[in-house]
Order: sequence, then C-alpha cells, then structure tokens
Amino acid sequence: MNLILLHPDDLTADGHARVTGRRAGHIREVHRAEKGDELRVGLLGGRMGTGRVEEVSPEAIVMSVRLMDDPPRPLPVTLLLALPRPKAFRRVLQGVTTLGVKRIALFGAYKVEKSYWQSPWLEPEPLREQLILGLEQARDTVLPRVTLHPLFKPFIEDEVPGLAGGTRRLVAHPGGMGVCPTGVGDGVTLAIGPEGGFTEYELGLLLKAGFEPVTLGPRILRTEQAVPALLGRFL
Amino acid sequence: MNLILLHPDDLTADGHARVTGRRAGHIREVHRAEKGDELRVGLLGGRMGTGRVEEVSPEAIVMSVRLMDDPPRPLPVTLLLALPRPKAFRRVLQGVTTLGVKRIALFGAYKVEKSYWQSPWLEPEPLREQLILGLEQARDTVLPRVTLHPLFKPFIEDEVPGLAGGTRRLVAHPGGMGVCPTGVGDGVTLAIGPEGGFTEYELGLLLKAGFEPVTLGPRILRTEQAVPALLGRFL
Repeated sequence: MNLILLHPDDLTADGHARVTGRRAGHIREVHRAEKGDELRVGLLGGRMGTGRVEEVSPEAIVMSVRLMDDPPRPLPVTLLLALPRPKAFRRVLQGVTTLGVKRIALFGAYKVEKSYWQSPWLEPEPLREQLILGLEQARDTVLPRVTLHPLFKPFIEDEVPGLAGGTRRLVAHPGGMGVCPTGVGDGVTLAIGPEGGFTEYELGLLLKAGFEPVTLGPRILRTEQAVPALLGRFL
Repeated sequence: MNLILLHPDDLTADGHARVTGRRAGHIREVHRAEKGDELRVGLLGGRMGTGRVEEVSPEAIVMSVRLMDDPPRPLPVTLLLALPRPKAFRRVLQGVTTLGVKRIALFGAYKVEKSYWQSPWLEPEPLREQLILGLEQARDTVLPRVTLHPLFKPFIEDEVPGLAGGTRRLVAHPGGMGVCPTGVGDGVTLAIGPEGGFTEYELGLLLKAGFEPVTLGPRILRTEQAVPALLGRFL
C-alpha cells in the first residue's frame, strides 16, 4: 500500500479523514504510524497529497489531509483482454491497474472456457477490490472502468467501434506481421487473446474491424507476462 | 507445456526418445496423445522439432524424434535483479525465462530482506525446475544461467564489469532521468532493484559503474509487473 486511498465517505467537514478496517490496520501495523507522522494519501477519483496522523485508535486512524497533486496521467491504452483463467485473474487485473490502464474490456473467445465467467471474482465488489489494490500499489486514484463481454462476435462488431474510436488498433497474435510498436500517439486499442490464441475466424473479425496483428517474438507467453510486456511498450 | 523438453538421457541410439514422470503424465492427460500423434519437442540446449508418438504406456511415452529447428534467438539482455520476495520468486523467474533472457544475476540490496536468501527455491534443483517450466511454456530449449550475489557492493564493483561488458547499462529507478529506451542495439544490461527501491548509496555505486537511471513513469510497480514491462521494451 504505497498510497492510503480515501473514499469520499472518509472525509469530514473540517478537512480530516477517518479511515477504518483494512487501511487502518495497515497504517497501524505496516507503517506503524504515530501521531504526527505524514502518510501519502489520495482521494478516490481525485487528487493526492499527505495525511498527517492526528489520532491512532483501535477502531480508526484520523488524519488531517492536504490534497494538492493530480494523479498520474492515464495510460492512453484501451485494453481488450480475453478473460484470463480464474487463477490468474486477480493478479492480471491488479497488474493492469498498476500500469495505468483506465479502460478494460474483458471478452469471451473460443478458447476462453465458459466456466471462467462463473468466477466469483467477476462480481462487482471483488472486482473493484482488485482495482483498489492496484491503485494503492501504483499511487493512483482513478479507478479503471471494467466491462464484461462474454460473446465475441457482437463485442467486436457492435461495441469495439465505439470503444476504440479513432485510436490505432492492435491485436497481439503469435503469427503477427511485425513486432508490436512502441509509443501511443493518439491512443491505442490493444486486443490480447486467450493463452491458446485466437481462432482464424476470430482473427478475421478483428482484422475486419481494423486491428493490425503484432507480435512480441516467437516465444509463447502466459497472460501474466504478455500483458505487462505489451503494455510496457506504451509506457 | 507448449514444448516437450527432452533431456539428453531420454534419447536412445536409434533416434527415439523415452520420457517418463511429469512429462509423460502431461502427454497422456493433457495432450491425450495416442500412437501416431505428433508433438512439439526440443532437446535441452539443442534443436527443436517433432516427436511422433510410437508407444504410450503407464510408465513412459516413446517417440521417434526429428529435430530440425534452431531454438528462438536469446534476448540480448543481461538481467541484474534484486532477489524477489519468496512468494513472487518462482513466478518472476519463470516469467523472465519465457521472455528469453539467458543471463540472470540475483543480487542482495539494503531493501532485500536477508531471510529471502534462505528460501528453498534458491537451491539448484528447485531453481532449475522453474527455468525448465519457463522453457516449456515459451518453446525454447536454452536454459538461462542464474547466479546469486548476496552482497551488493562487491557484486557491482567486482562482478558487474565482467557481466555487462560493452553493453548499454540501465538501472530502473523511480527517479530515473528519462523513460526506459526500447530496442537493444549491441545488448543491454538491465538492473532492477527491490520493491522498496535502491538506497542513495546503492544508486551511487550503480551510476559509478556506468548505469543510466531510467524509469517507466510515475506509478510504483511490483516486481511481477516491472520485470516484464521493462523487458517488453527490448523484445
């Protein structure tokens, strides 16, 4: 937790913040904060700054808060990601959040097992929790927006045009034409398939929708490596 | 397992390979291979090709093997990595291997807890096992060489000059001067610190040794994200 993320409800009228639960435990036990210590804080969806500890109790930490810095700039990459297997899902989602992506569309494909969509981690609250953990790690305050699209064809044909807008459209594919570019220009929409790859039919739909196939070389990467290795090229 | 990695001991004089244990179990249960099926195989440290299944028994799989392809080219990056916390160690090491790094030096630093060096995963056999898993995932046959350097100062002063040779030397540091370059030129030696960062003293030693401080932006990344995000820039 490199940032104590404050929720609007934590703020009192006099410029104080009162945090409880997991965050208070972390401040007490990891930061071992005492009265007078300064901590990095940020307001969810807002600015970042410092919190001066005024009170440490078993129930809560009270801080006086000054929020003067803007959060880091969003990474101008819209990520279209085949739903990862449940075991990797939380790590991948947290990781994408720490890298600064603000728009994530999780989609189904032939090689995404249907059972993955039953994962309890896709419920709004557990999902939001992973995003919060990512923001606390990265020192950022702006939650990514995450949407779920189990059906591939209507997703690509009906929703991607609005999602991708005028950005450069790239699809990571082992047989891609060239190595993935670096730098984002006016923004990038990056599609990353399931670990077994896209089918020819799916790739055809992506090409028709204006995606350029790109690769990171001959090695086959797990989603946990492929996602940051691709996003790292746009940082 | 995208590649069945053969050990020299598996080969018989008549061009057959006989694999047992974990690999045989995987071929039976995941590939569900039957006589006549062709599998992707590679010889540890050597070439890759196909294995035609000749015999499936509870003890072993026997294949006739043709090895005609060179393994993918090494990534010309020498990775100097602060020893990750044990919980992340295996994932990071496997990940680095799938990305094609062939030289990994794990070092100690002020913010690397001394207890990490007691991890059983650093013993030669468990360590080699992670590298093998990485090669099987990536479809590669060439094991990275991994060395351990618990003491920071003698590592940087006495060993890094030989390790880095004439390559460009980069150190990933949150306060770095510019964004990490892309492309490798004549090779790169990339130093990545512990999650708490290098101390000023440590950074000073690295600068003295010719390392340029570079960054991936203002967000604070976990090792699991930072390593592939940095290496992805050189793929």
